[in-house]
Amino acid sequence: MDQPRPDSVPDPAVRRLSLYLRQLESFKKKDRRTISSKQLGESLGLTDAQVRKDLAYFGQFGHPGIGYRVDDLIGQVRHILGTDKTWNVVMVGAGNLGRALSAYRGFSSKGFKLVAVFDNDPSKVGKKLGPFSIQPLSELETTAHKQSVRLGIVAVPADNAQEVADQLVAAGVRGLLNFAPVSLTVPRGVALNSVDLAVQLEQLSFQVNLSPGPESRR
Amino acid sequence: MDQPRPDSVPDPAVRRLSLYLRQLESFKKKDRRTISSKQLGESLGLTDAQVRKDLAYFGQFGHPGIGYRVDDLIGQVRHILGTDKTWNVVMVGAGNLGRALSAYRGFSSKGFKLVAVFDNDPSKVGKKLGPFSIQPLSELETTAHKQSVRLGIVAVPADNAQEVADQLVAAGVRGLLNFAPVSLTVPRGVALNSVDLAVQLEQLSFQVNLSPGPESRR
Repeated sequence: MDQPRPDSVPDPAVRRLSLYLRQLESFKKKDRRTISSKQLGESLGLTDAQVRKDLAYFGQFGHPGIGYRVDDLIGQVRHILGTDKTWNVVMVGAGNLGRALSAYRGFSSKGFKLVAVFDNDPSKVGKKLGPFSIQPLSELETTAHKQSVRLGIVAVPADNAQEVADQLVAAGVRGLLNFAPVSLTVPRGVALNSVDLAVQLEQLSFQVNLSPGPESRR
Repeated sequence: MDQPRPDSVPDPAVRRLSLYLRQLESFKKKDRRTISSKQLGESLGLTDAQVRKDLAYFGQFGHPGIGYRVDDLIGQVRHILGTDKTWNVVMVGAGNLGRALSAYRGFSSKGFKLVAVFDNDPSKVGKKLGPFSIQPLSELETTAHKQSVRLGIVAVPADNAQEVADQLVAAGVRGLLNFAPVSLTVPRGVALNSVDLAVQLEQLSFQVNLSPGPESRR
């Protein structure tokens, strides 16, 4: 399968690949062997044309008269997303969010293995966070190299986030998942994805605020 | 200020409003009084035209020769997003993620007040989650009505998420923030925003996987 350069595929298409994968895994659980682009699309509120177009960036996966073989397409999408192998991940920040993320089972089932947790708070270093012994940031580079870590999670307060991002990049991390409510700057060639939980609620309040349905007027 | 119907403003523009607000708050902290669309855009990697276009959906906020008054624009964007008032929020799910979210200080500073936490696990009901006493789901409707709750957080495993979403909607919640790794269905007029943490990492692995920079080849 020829893989295009990542910057030639629109971000929304890559995002939908993850959604297709979730749906395919869910179909697989229900013992579905094959699925059409129409069925896959409908399960996500998308047209069959959109499904076919998104997948066409990466190759030809359907079979005439059959559709997609669920198992095959799961493997192919995982290969495209790079999650057919396991990624070692480090996290910086051992606060409440760090604790939740370290216990989040959704990561490992999707190909991501948290291998170390760091915090620069001396009162936290050496303490346990789930199965991890919290390490000082001074050990980040050594640990990251030893474990071939390419992905890192930033779970520190906003004020420390840029500094932590810089340290992760210096340690060889090439993809950052940022939970701090601040815009980070990373060098070219480093991928950055930010999850600002308050932004998610703001987007909802915008919609709820402006569309009072009949039930809400009671 | 005339507010358009929410479905007439593109989602990405609403999402950028949240980013503008973050940047404006950050500029305010640094005692900036005014800012141009160019400066606001540059801080987020956007053009000044994009900033002006996004804000123009909601009114005319700039002043010739001055730009935007930071304080005023913060107030105006909060008003647009509906976060100039405080929203009461309930959360269902008192596991690790629920625990982290209940302790997440970023919500309250942005106008969201968590008022109750629910779980259907009898071993959790009555226990404390931070300042909250975990309530059974049977109390959801009463509590939600009493506290005029319009926003709800779904922090339960995938298998229970749709059922919980249905119960939240039945209790009058009109905006759902879903953390379960599953596609939910909600009635028309109910807003839904999903945060799948594994998807965020998948998007990074896609980019890192296909763009091995020189440093990564060591």
